[in-house]
Amino acid sequence: MLTEDLALHTDKYQINMMYAHWHLGTHERKAVFEAYFRKLPFGNGYAVFAGLERIVHYISNLRFTEEDIQYLAEQEENYDLGFLEELRTFQFRGTIHSMKEGALVFPGEPLIRVEARMMEAQLVETAILNFMNFQTLISTKASRIKQIAGQDMLLEFGTRRAQEADAAVWGARAAYIAGFHATSNMLAGKKFGIPTKGTHAHSWVQSFESEQESFDAYAKVLPDQVSLLVDTFDTLESGVPHAIQTGKYLASIGKELAAIRLDSGDLAYLSIEARKMLDEAGLPNVKIVASNDLDENTILNLKAQGARIDTWGVGTQLITAADQPSLGGVYKLVERDVDGEMKPTIKISGNPEKVSTPGKKDVYRIIDRTSGKALADYICFPDEEQPREGGPIKLLNPQHSYLQKTIRNYEAIPMLEPIFVDGIQVYVLPVLEAIRDYHKEQLNLFWPQYLRKMNPEIFRVNISEKVWDLKKSMMAEYMQEEDI
Amino acid sequence: MLTEDLALHTDKYQINMMYAHWHLGTHERKAVFEAYFRKLPFGNGYAVFAGLERIVHYISNLRFTEEDIQYLAEQEENYDLGFLEELRTFQFRGTIHSMKEGALVFPGEPLIRVEARMMEAQLVETAILNFMNFQTLISTKASRIKQIAGQDMLLEFGTRRAQEADAAVWGARAAYIAGFHATSNMLAGKKFGIPTKGTHAHSWVQSFESEQESFDAYAKVLPDQVSLLVDTFDTLESGVPHAIQTGKYLASIGKELAAIRLDSGDLAYLSIEARKMLDEAGLPNVKIVASNDLDENTILNLKAQGARIDTWGVGTQLITAADQPSLGGVYKLVERDVDGEMKPTIKISGNPEKVSTPGKKDVYRIIDRTSGKALADYICFPDEEQPREGGPIKLLNPQHSYLQKTIRNYEAIPMLEPIFVDGIQVYVLPVLEAIRDYHKEQLNLFWPQYLRKMNPEIFRVNISEKVWDLKKSMMAEYMQEEDI
Repeated sequence: MLTEDLALHTDKYQINMMYAHWHLGTHERKAVFEAYFRKLPFGNGYAVFAGLERIVHYISNLRFTEEDIQYLAEQEENYDLGFLEELRTFQFRGTIHSMKEGALVFPGEPLIRVEARMMEAQLVETAILNFMNFQTLISTKASRIKQIAGQDMLLEFGTRRAQEADAAVWGARAAYIAGFHATSNMLAGKKFGIPTKGTHAHSWVQSFESEQESFDAYAKVLPDQVSLLVDTFDTLESGVPHAIQTGKYLASIGKELAAIRLDSGDLAYLSIEARKMLDEAGLPNVKIVASNDLDENTILNLKAQGARIDTWGVGTQLITAADQPSLGGVYKLVERDVDGEMKPTIKISGNPEKVSTPGKKDVYRIIDRTSGKALADYICFPDEEQPREGGPIKLLNPQHSYLQKTIRNYEAIPMLEPIFVDGIQVYVLPVLEAIRDYHKEQLNLFWPQYLRKMNPEIFRVNISEKVWDLKKSMMAEYMQEEDI
Repeated sequence: MLTEDLALHTDKYQINMMYAHWHLGTHERKAVFEAYFRKLPFGNGYAVFAGLERIVHYISNLRFTEEDIQYLAEQEENYDLGFLEELRTFQFRGTIHSMKEGALVFPGEPLIRVEARMMEAQLVETAILNFMNFQTLISTKASRIKQIAGQDMLLEFGTRRAQEADAAVWGARAAYIAGFHATSNMLAGKKFGIPTKGTHAHSWVQSFESEQESFDAYAKVLPDQVSLLVDTFDTLESGVPHAIQTGKYLASIGKELAAIRLDSGDLAYLSIEARKMLDEAGLPNVKIVASNDLDENTILNLKAQGARIDTWGVGTQLITAADQPSLGGVYKLVERDVDGEMKPTIKISGNPEKVSTPGKKDVYRIIDRTSGKALADYICFPDEEQPREGGPIKLLNPQHSYLQKTIRNYEAIPMLEPIFVDGIQVYVLPVLEAIRDYHKEQLNLFWPQYLRKMNPEIFRVNISEKVWDLKKSMMAEYMQEEDI
């Protein structure tokens, strides 16, 4: 998947627009696109940005193979041979800025900014959105679960219900970024160095004459990491007593039963009873793992019921983001080259939320120097100097512009990192542990009310006065035209 | 994706169980597993089986690379070197039967049956479920949409919201199997020969001084397939009138504007008005394409409102199966080798629906010779001869065994095809058009009441008396043991 030829992993209209630009001679003109989403998923107060590593590999390896060219030639007899020739030597030569993976991100702010020739900026839209939308969605879902699980161990167990292989593997990585501790997917383990975990299946128990025999056999072969699945027949009548027997055997050879796993039934009741039985049997260190369609809501409820669960195996609900299985990230043209000069452009819509914000923009996270906490995100043009130089900035709510305040004692952290400059990768992809650490630092910048699962406070994303003035004037210009 | 090394695309517990079996010397013992789901998605009356082509490629290419072995050795110092040696020469040598892609399938019937050495049967569980669950889910969702769209053209437009690249590409194929006409994803087009379609983006319009200029430019470059997106500024005030101008220009050079595309707003109203405007302008052949979060429910509602839409572009809701983004397919051990003899095995559960049906089983589709329509599916052991030989069979409802009837005048179609026999692929993968045709034939076997979107009749899946007797006796045996 990392090295797959993905040049054609794009929508047909991108290729058609590339062709049309090429034909008109406008394909080398510069354009600036920004990727962002309009609405947070799951009613959460933030999203966790992910997908950049995948995007970097994609951009770096972006070539049309001979097979791709052949396919296009057969598909579309209209395509001029010169265009196909152009594709043969195609490489991405543009500049990309992006949020770092693990960053907390918010609606309406550019997460990825692509400055490139029209032709290449158009081509990469589909794949960038595909990767960013999915991975950010799963990291955000995982982060919600992490908020509830606290210090408990979290295992990603979703592969068999994931939406195909890429979703399983990249989804496992997205979950790990947001604080999951391990995955069951071995390919994700190999590719990304994520710790892997697993117990055994019901079929293991079924392939022996008795449950006890199956547990003992497993313990003999893998004595250092025995987790026993106890619900093949009856959790409390059969599974837990047999696991205790095996636990005692392990103790007798100087080892320890690591865990039992509950995978069905009333997890609150079963975990409380199993805990008692294990404790009474002198096995207080044996952990209890639970799984079975868990998500942040079921985990919260189980905790409220006093469930004695140490480790949560989360599958389907996480890996498909079941309660909202897509993030609506979009990619909009904000500036274009008109006779050698970059001009802002706007997309109007009957729906005010869908009107795009014109012009190439930067994003700063504004930190209150007194509390060390984030006050707002601030979106401005690259030539606006206040945030960089610490001058007073006015926080202006674009939906309700009478809501504004001026702040002075702040630190402004630039959020968009240069990733590619003129086609050269300038960003060193961090190791996964560093991404996890960055994510934790990011969380620490926010007051708890922005992070809570239910009805979080809305974190302010503000645009500069200049950005607001441009947007207003361009909307007015458009309205005027329409009146004529 | 087709050729990716996927041996480690599995859960850790599979590798651990393989190791444990190897260590105990039971890894070469024969086992029979069956994959099935318990509940239909979306409240639909049937599911459309898909995923087989992907599974065949996976099984055929199933090898542990040197890198995989190295990873396992580093991960798990407990693994004996002999085990790693075994993996080095590992190939799938078992037998697989499967439903054909495009088949209508139902809860509780084996869709894929794997007879193999314990070690290999265990390894392949995760990937088989991952592929089958996702692709069957999307084909089923697409089939629901197709039921409502009737003869209208259906385009799959979901790539940017799909759950990563595999989901986009294999999802496009799954939609095509169930009757979609084209996809926007060029990689799916290239890999599978699916027709591709596309218009242009808002950014195309934004990159010109005016909408009219942008439409005309597009028409000049690609005169044979012009579809114009008309909602960049205002659909009826700006987009449609400009498209009409371009349509007239095309007519003047002997070409035809193919379509306009509505992508926001009230699609019923806009399509009705746009149709009038096009007709009045002498452009009755210009089709109207609509998109914007469509699914079978919105399409049904738009049709009820008299929308004049010819072609539906369906994205997010289809490609993520948004209303139920996972199919809960499972893979259960049904028979195992005990001292050289194959014995049935059962998985008990407190939840009666989750009790597995023991023994290796075949599936027949029972067709009424009078009507030519499907009466029921019939699950029996391979040594039961009635369905093959046309003898009387008793249809028995396993949940309510008093519901039964005996039938005589039927044809029994065996549904499980041999795919691999002793590791050799014996099944020739059909071309995609043949799969689409097979799917249509399958639909024709069913009365409309089983196919309708809402509250469909439940199609009977019956088990033979022998299967039922075995299940009953094994449950009783287990209950007895528990009483002691």
